[in-house]
Amino acid sequence: MAKVGVVLCGCGVYDGSEIHEAVITLLALDRAGVEIVCMAPNIPQMHVVNHLTGDVVEGENRNVLVESARIARGAIRDLAEVNANELDAVIIPGGFGAAKNLCDFAVAGSDCQVNPDLSCLVQSMVAAKKPVGALCIAPAPLAKILGEIAPEVTIGSDAATASALEGMGAKHIDCPVDCCVVDKQHKLVTSPAYMLAGRISEAAAGIEKAVAELLALL
Amino acid sequence: MAKVGVVLCGCGVYDGSEIHEAVITLLALDRAGVEIVCMAPNIPQMHVVNHLTGDVVEGENRNVLVESARIARGAIRDLAEVNANELDAVIIPGGFGAAKNLCDFAVAGSDCQVNPDLSCLVQSMVAAKKPVGALCIAPAPLAKILGEIAPEVTIGSDAATASALEGMGAKHIDCPVDCCVVDKQHKLVTSPAYMLAGRISEAAAGIEKAVAELLALL
Repeated sequence: MAKVGVVLCGCGVYDGSEIHEAVITLLALDRAGVEIVCMAPNIPQMHVVNHLTGDVVEGENRNVLVESARIARGAIRDLAEVNANELDAVIIPGGFGAAKNLCDFAVAGSDCQVNPDLSCLVQSMVAAKKPVGALCIAPAPLAKILGEIAPEVTIGSDAATASALEGMGAKHIDCPVDCCVVDKQHKLVTSPAYMLAGRISEAAAGIEKAVAELLALL
Repeated sequence: MAKVGVVLCGCGVYDGSEIHEAVITLLALDRAGVEIVCMAPNIPQMHVVNHLTGDVVEGENRNVLVESARIARGAIRDLAEVNANELDAVIIPGGFGAAKNLCDFAVAGSDCQVNPDLSCLVQSMVAAKKPVGALCIAPAPLAKILGEIAPEVTIGSDAATASALEGMGAKHIDCPVDCCVVDKQHKLVTSPAYMLAGRISEAAAGIEKAVAELLALL
């Protein structure tokens, strides 16, 4: 049975993993019959956002691993303790957490720094020719980690964000919400999800295709 | 276009809405083409649980509506401000929040008290012969609210919980994880979800059937 890592980064679109994207990914993987390994970095969130108002909550701190455990129903591991050797593929759902907690792309753009454990995991997977997927804004840390090999990725069609990804060495390919982009050479699969989706069923259409393409690369 | 209310009660299986159940419900409703109205009570959570350790976090307070907004991506209303007149159906995903924040069944059992706004909404829906659904443990508050009409519901097959529901006046019907129970007389639909599910695809199978049955009652 294939073992697929799902990298989470909190619990909520504005300061963590986008919840719909994460759950749709987990469901698609489970329906495909693979074993799922959820993981997240054991670090403080960049900040906490009140999702009712959209405001940053001053003075509140939450831990990325602890909040990610909500999506994983407790079955989650510290990203630092997961080795690429034990996984057959990895996928990173989106949400602002991918640009705030997995790297600081949300504030630093192309000059962002990536969580070293994520960087190590992704580099090891790609070096071992194992597939890696990323949804929504999660291709941003992917572009930073893999810029030197010029990965082909999509975040949809937002010109400014696409340009920032190209500034990190990636080749951006426009993609509609219900599709995904496959870089066959490097075994990378990306889909725009809520970078473009106006409703959950639109995000699901692209994510389900991305998961199928990811598993087809095994 | 039918308008379906989704009652949330926090964000996480141990102190709020079960995230997988909530997202699968939203996706099934959106794929059916109905308009979704998310809502949650604007009250403090009974407590906050660290989902990595399972422990209650002493001294931490979170608001049910604010945390539920994470699942709803901010598109959520105060349950107290939603009138049954504007809805065609209502569904309540599970999670311990349904037994801790929507009522106190988790600590008081059959003697529980139900959030008065939820009670009012459900009674109005049933009086208007509009369908109401409940997943996982959420049939508990339903049983308390509707005990006088002896609603037929399921929480799966847990004898002690089923007995507590019968203690509130409900008639419990055993049901496997991939099915749902339909009380046609009162237009109620319930499915065990994570009361029985060992994996997300099992929960999804029953929830998707429950949503289809709920909409078939419109």
